[in-house]
Amino acid sequence: MRWARIDHAGTPSYAIVEGETLIPVRGSPFATWERTGSHMKLAETKLLPPVIPPTFYACGMNYAEHVRAVAAKIGQPPNLPTHPEIGYRANNALIGPGDPIVIPADATDKVQYEGELVAVIGRKCKHLTRENALGAVLGYTIGNDVSERSWQKSDRTMFRSKNTDTFKPMGPWIETDVKLEDLVTKVRLNGRQIIEFHTNHMVFGVVDFLVAMTKYLTLYPGDMVWMGTEGECENMKHGDVCEVEISGIGVLSNPVVREGA
Amino acid sequence: MRWARIDHAGTPSYAIVEGETLIPVRGSPFATWERTGSHMKLAETKLLPPVIPPTFYACGMNYAEHVRAVAAKIGQPPNLPTHPEIGYRANNALIGPGDPIVIPADATDKVQYEGELVAVIGRKCKHLTRENALGAVLGYTIGNDVSERSWQKSDRTMFRSKNTDTFKPMGPWIETDVKLEDLVTKVRLNGRQIIEFHTNHMVFGVVDFLVAMTKYLTLYPGDMVWMGTEGECENMKHGDVCEVEISGIGVLSNPVVREGA
Repeated sequence: MRWARIDHAGTPSYAIVEGETLIPVRGSPFATWERTGSHMKLAETKLLPPVIPPTFYACGMNYAEHVRAVAAKIGQPPNLPTHPEIGYRANNALIGPGDPIVIPADATDKVQYEGELVAVIGRKCKHLTRENALGAVLGYTIGNDVSERSWQKSDRTMFRSKNTDTFKPMGPWIETDVKLEDLVTKVRLNGRQIIEFHTNHMVFGVVDFLVAMTKYLTLYPGDMVWMGTEGECENMKHGDVCEVEISGIGVLSNPVVREGA
Repeated sequence: MRWARIDHAGTPSYAIVEGETLIPVRGSPFATWERTGSHMKLAETKLLPPVIPPTFYACGMNYAEHVRAVAAKIGQPPNLPTHPEIGYRANNALIGPGDPIVIPADATDKVQYEGELVAVIGRKCKHLTRENALGAVLGYTIGNDVSERSWQKSDRTMFRSKNTDTFKPMGPWIETDVKLEDLVTKVRLNGRQIIEFHTNHMVFGVVDFLVAMTKYLTLYPGDMVWMGTEGECENMKHGDVCEVEISGIGVLSNPVVREGA
């Protein structure tokens, strides 16, 4: 089942995706819902980020090759995590599929994509176990953890390197029927494929993170966990289009513009 | 004017504090509102955290003496910020006045208070200037940035050192009539005063942060910025009561319990 979020007569609303059709619902997948009588064409409807979370969690360094590549790029020694320790991103930066990634005028040319699996939490939970952790996940979507590498190197925090407005594209929808072991992530820049990796080949997987996090913290419906990316990333520039595809989920596509260009 | 948040017949609701009386409103201070006909006694009403933010910002190291004290405590060199770079905390950890701070069973005894001024944003804004920045602030409240120092030292992120459930007491209300230069912060443990400092003697002030942040990010109504703390902090243990007072705003008081104690 696929859950998209749309602007329905001025109000954000959830809709079921069935083939090329959107069926708006009353309620939400995080509580109770029922189909409305209306239908819309998927191709003609603007999709919003599929959820605005109470808390926006992100793994950071969670694939071995990417840790080495980023460390080389920002001039620090590679430092593979030894525990699943979660970090944060910020809601201001979220945009939906098709929305432009806007590079600030004072950014360097080192603005790069990071294609990521996103786990969306479906229910309030704490003290999850390895056995029941995946049952707390409503479904999965796709995120692009856009990063300005010079700021990531120079700043104490990631407030502008990763959380500048528009730096967190997400979508196109939440897919509830996912087998994590089968997923493959691909990133394309202007149609040229750059990266392909087994999505679940993480240093620490979804279960590892949910168990470790909920030892100390309560997760709420709509919270989401961005699971990190693999491999080397390339720069994106004004006029580019960046696509992140995860098999069985969909394609997240966003154009890139530079302020003042 | 003072804005408290209460549980009104099962729904979180804003209320105006007038002396010892609470007057619930329809709407909220972030949009339009009107007084209801009802009244409640402040002393007999449970107060909620005065806001649940879309994004929870926090300054971290923002007072010179505290930077030196914490660096000594976690065995790292002191590193005073040279730019106002904002960090993040998480909504799961928020509790209201009077709610217990719950120390996890596996925490060390180095669980410490940090008494902080909190600026609550009143309107959507970007590209604030030094002249108009304070006009985007609805008002100010008090936060206690509870921190487990051994985890703060050992972990890559602050997911458990600062964001364990109950580690972010906030309240008692949002005060809209505040003159920043006049504020004094005091912290008391079991009635004994430990710290007193001029709240506004920050490395970077509220205006500095709001201008620097909104160069890159949009702030939304209800977003909040915790401004950091001064001085050395002491451990809190099961049975303690921690109070943070900021003159002209109020007193935030929370008991401390340890899991399994």
